[in-house]
Amino acid sequence: MKRKVGEIAAAVGARVVGDEQLEISRVASVANSRAGDLVFVEDEKHLQVALASPASAVLAKRVANQEGITKALLIAANPRLAFARAAKLLQSGIEHRPGIHATAVLHESVAIDKTVAIDARVIIDENVRIGRQTWIGAGCVMGASVTVGQDCKIYPNVTIYPGTRIGDRVVIHAGAVLGSDGFGYVPHPETGRYEKFPQIGTVEIEDDVEIGSNTTIDRGALETTRIGRGTKIGNLVHIGHNCLIGENVIIAAQAGFSGSITIENNVVIGGQVGVGEHARIQEGVLLGGQSGVLPKKVLRGKGIAFWGTPAKPLREYLKSLAMLAKLGR
Amino acid sequence: MKRKVGEIAAAVGARVVGDEQLEISRVASVANSRAGDLVFVEDEKHLQVALASPASAVLAKRVANQEGITKALLIAANPRLAFARAAKLLQSGIEHRPGIHATAVLHESVAIDKTVAIDARVIIDENVRIGRQTWIGAGCVMGASVTVGQDCKIYPNVTIYPGTRIGDRVVIHAGAVLGSDGFGYVPHPETGRYEKFPQIGTVEIEDDVEIGSNTTIDRGALETTRIGRGTKIGNLVHIGHNCLIGENVIIAAQAGFSGSITIENNVVIGGQVGVGEHARIQEGVLLGGQSGVLPKKVLRGKGIAFWGTPAKPLREYLKSLAMLAKLGR
Amino acid sequence: MKRKVGEIAAAVGARVVGDEQLEISRVASVANSRAGDLVFVEDEKHLQVALASPASAVLAKRVANQEGITKALLIAANPRLAFARAAKLLQSGIEHRPGIHATAVLHESVAIDKTVAIDARVIIDENVRIGRQTWIGAGCVMGASVTVGQDCKIYPNVTIYPGTRIGDRVVIHAGAVLGSDGFGYVPHPETGRYEKFPQIGTVEIEDDVEIGSNTTIDRGALETTRIGRGTKIGNLVHIGHNCLIGENVIIAAQAGFSGSITIENNVVIGGQVGVGEHARIQEGVLLGGQSGVLPKKVLRGKGIAFWGTPAKPLREYLKSLAMLAKLGR
Repeated sequence: MKRKVGEIAAAVGARVVGDEQLEISRVASVANSRAGDLVFVEDEKHLQVALASPASAVLAKRVANQEGITKALLIAANPRLAFARAAKLLQSGIEHRPGIHATAVLHESVAIDKTVAIDARVIIDENVRIGRQTWIGAGCVMGASVTVGQDCKIYPNVTIYPGTRIGDRVVIHAGAVLGSDGFGYVPHPETGRYEKFPQIGTVEIEDDVEIGSNTTIDRGALETTRIGRGTKIGNLVHIGHNCLIGENVIIAAQAGFSGSITIENNVVIGGQVGVGEHARIQEGVLLGGQSGVLPKKVLRGKGIAFWGTPAKPLREYLKSLAMLAKLGR
Repeated sequence: MKRKVGEIAAAVGARVVGDEQLEISRVASVANSRAGDLVFVEDEKHLQVALASPASAVLAKRVANQEGITKALLIAANPRLAFARAAKLLQSGIEHRPGIHATAVLHESVAIDKTVAIDARVIIDENVRIGRQTWIGAGCVMGASVTVGQDCKIYPNVTIYPGTRIGDRVVIHAGAVLGSDGFGYVPHPETGRYEKFPQIGTVEIEDDVEIGSNTTIDRGALETTRIGRGTKIGNLVHIGHNCLIGENVIIAAQAGFSGSITIENNVVIGGQVGVGEHARIQEGVLLGGQSGVLPKKVLRGKGIAFWGTPAKPLREYLKSLAMLAKLGR
Repeated sequence: MKRKVGEIAAAVGARVVGDEQLEISRVASVANSRAGDLVFVEDEKHLQVALASPASAVLAKRVANQEGITKALLIAANPRLAFARAAKLLQSGIEHRPGIHATAVLHESVAIDKTVAIDARVIIDENVRIGRQTWIGAGCVMGASVTVGQDCKIYPNVTIYPGTRIGDRVVIHAGAVLGSDGFGYVPHPETGRYEKFPQIGTVEIEDDVEIGSNTTIDRGALETTRIGRGTKIGNLVHIGHNCLIGENVIIAAQAGFSGSITIENNVVIGGQVGVGEHARIQEGVLLGGQSGVLPKKVLRGKGIAFWGTPAKPLREYLKSLAMLAKLGR
C-alpha cells in the first residue's frame, strides 16, 4: 500500500526535508533498496551509503549538511522506531481475506464474525469464540472452549488445547502448541512407577503477546499458566505448567522454564536459558544466553545482568572466567 | 463425572472422616477451589488453609484435631498420589467420541475398531493398525504400517513416520514427530560433501510412555530407537537414532540425546541436558538441568546426582564451583 | 528393489569377490541381518561377526584371508560411503506416487507437473512453483510465492511461509517451519513497550540441504536468511533472521543461532550449541556440543575445535577444566 512521505512522517512523528508528495511503496534495507523505498540509518556514519542508494527516502536522526540531497529525508529522534512504525503503516490493508474456507471444520456451536478469516482445514471445536478481524491459518486445531481475541494472527498448524484463553492482537507462529499437559508425575512409593498428576489447569495469553514457531506452553496443573501483556517469545521456547510470565518480557529462542516459575515485568531472557522450578526473576533483570537458574532461586536487580550456570551477576561471573582462563595457561 | 467421597476413598485407598455420601465433581487446588471440589495438602502446615477453603473435601496425611471440621476428610499415606488417582477417577468417562470423522482420510487397507476415535483431517496410510479405545487427534498423519496400541491418546498435528510401533496407553502431545530420519552422513573423502547414511531402522514406544509436545524421536539408522515402558518425556526433547531409553525414565523438556545412547531404567534427566553419542547412563542416575555428558562416557551410581559439563558427581562439581567463586572475588 | 551384487559393486565402486549374480534386497546392520542383505564392516576386527551373520554379502575395506568364505564380498576403500550409496540404490524406485490427492487444496494459479506427488490435505497458496518429482507430505502448508525445486521431499505437517525459496533435492522433515518472522522488536523509549521491527525479508534454502523435524528457520528482517548448498541441519534447531549459513555445514540437534550470524563453509556445530548475534564462525571450525559463542565474536581456524561457554580452543578449555577439577578436590 503506497503512502506519501508526508503521510508517513505524520504517522511516525518525523519532520520532512524534501518532497512530501513523494510516494513510498515499502521499507527496505539500504543494501536491498530500490526506487520507491524508505530506508533508515541509526548512525550518521551510515548516512552517506544510504544517500547513495537507490532508495527514495531516508529516515535519520539528523542530517548535518542537507546540501545536494535529492532524496526525501525524514528526521526522527528514534529512527529505528519510526522505521518500524512506517513499515507497519505500509503493510496495512487486508492481509487475509475474511471468510471461512470450505474445508474448515467448525463445530455447529461456533459463531464466527464475518470479519474473521479462517483458512483451509482449520478445525474448531465446540464453544470456541474468536474476536473480530482475527486470522486463523491453515491446519490450526482449536479445542473446545478456546477463546481468541480480536486482531490476532494465528499462523498455520498451531494446536491450541481446550480452554486456552488468548487476548487481543496476539500473534502465534506456525507449529506452536498452547495448553498441552504439564510435566507432572507422582512416583509410586513401592514400584517407583510414575502416575500422572492432574494437568487440568489452563493457559492465559494476554494482549499483544507474540509467540514463536514450534514454541510450547503447557497448561497449569491445577492453576493457570499466564503470559503477561506485551511479552515476546521466540521459537522453540518451552514454558512449563503454572509459570507466571509478567508483562513486556523478552524471551529469546530455545529458553526453557520448568514449573511454577515467576518472571516479573520487563525481564529479558537470552537464548537457551534454563530456569528451575519455583524460581523467581525479579523486575528488569537481564539473563545472558545459556544461563541456568537453580530451582527456587530469586534473582533481583533492575537492569542487572546475570550470566552462567548457576547464574551470577555478570561482573562476578566474568572475574571467575578470567581467573579460570589464567589457570588454563 | 461426579463421584461420592466414599467411592473415591475406596478407589484411592483412603480412610474417610465425615460424610461418605458427599458428591465430588472435580479436583482443584486449594486457591481455586469451590463447593464440590476435592483438594489435597501434603504438609500439615497447609491444612488450615485447605479447611478454610470452599472445597467440600480434603485429602491429607493426617488430621490431628478433627474437632469442628465440617468438610469430608480423606486420610491417605501419600496424599499426592491419592489425589492424582482421584483426579483420574473423576476425569474418566468418554472423553473422545468413538467414530471416524468424515474428513479423515484412511487407506482402504485400514480396519478401525468401532471404539476408536479418529478426529477431523487425520491421515492414515496403508496397513496401519490401531488398538481399541485409542484417540487420534485432528490433523495427525500416520505413515504406512504404523501400529498403535489400545487406550492411547494422540493429540493433534502429530506426525508418525512409517513403521513406528506404539504400545498401549501411550500419550503423545501435539506436534510431536516420531520416526523421522536420524542425523547420519558420510563425508566424501575428496569433496568433503556429505552423503546420507541409510536411516531405515524404526522406532518402538513401549506401554505407558508419555511424550511431550513438539518432541522429536528419530528412527534408528539400521536398528531400532526404543523408549521403555513407563518413561515420561517432556516437550521439545530430541532423541537421536538408535537410542535405547530404559523403563521408567524421566526426561525433562529440551533435553537432547545424540545417537546410540543407552539410558538405563529409573534414570532422571533434567531439562536441557545434552548427552553425546554412545554414552551410557546407568540405572538410577540423576542428571541435573543443563548437564552435558561426553560421547562414550559412562555415568554410574544409583541415586547419584551428576551436574555440569562435563557432568560430574554433584558434590565434586559444587566444590569446583565454590572454588571458582572464591577466585572471582 | 532387488539388485545383483555385481550391479551394486559397479555403482558404488567396489570389487567383488564371489558371486556377482547374487541378488540383494536391502542393507542391514550385522545384528539385524537376514538372507538377501548387504552389511558392512569398517574395522577388520568386526569382519568375523559379519561373516558369521545371515547376511548374503559383506562390504569391507579388505579381507586378508578369503579362504572358506561363502558370502559375496564387496571390497571398497571407504566401506561406510559405499554402503550408504548401496542403500540409496536399493531404496530407489517410486517412493511416492505422483498425483494430487483429492483433499489437497491448491490455489488456481498453481500448475503442478504430473511427476509431482501432493499428499492429502496439503494447502498450496497462489503462485507457488514446485519442481519435477518433488513430494509434498500430508498436511503441509505452503504460503504464496513459495518455490520448491525438483526431487525434494517435504515430510508431513511442514509449514512454509510466503516467499520462501527452496532448491533441488532438499529434504525437510515433519513439523519444520521455514520463513516465520524473525525476533526483532524496538523498545519504546518512554513506555518500554516493544514494537515489532519489520520482518519482511525471506529465506533461501540451497540445493541438497536436509532440515530436521520441528526445526525453525526465520525469514530475514529486511534481508535474506540463507542456508548454503549441502548443509545438513538436525532436529529442533533454531536459525534466526539474517543468518548466512555456508555450504556443507553440519548443525546438530537443538543448536540455536540468533540473528545476523555468519557460518562459513564446512563448519561443524555440535548439539545444543548457542551462537550470539553477529558472530562469525570461519571456515572449517568445529564447535563442541553445548558451546556458547558470544555476540560479534569471530572464531577462526580450519579444523580447530572450540568448546565451552564462551567457546575457546579445546586444548585451552580442557586445561581450565583440569585446573578447576583439581581445585574441587
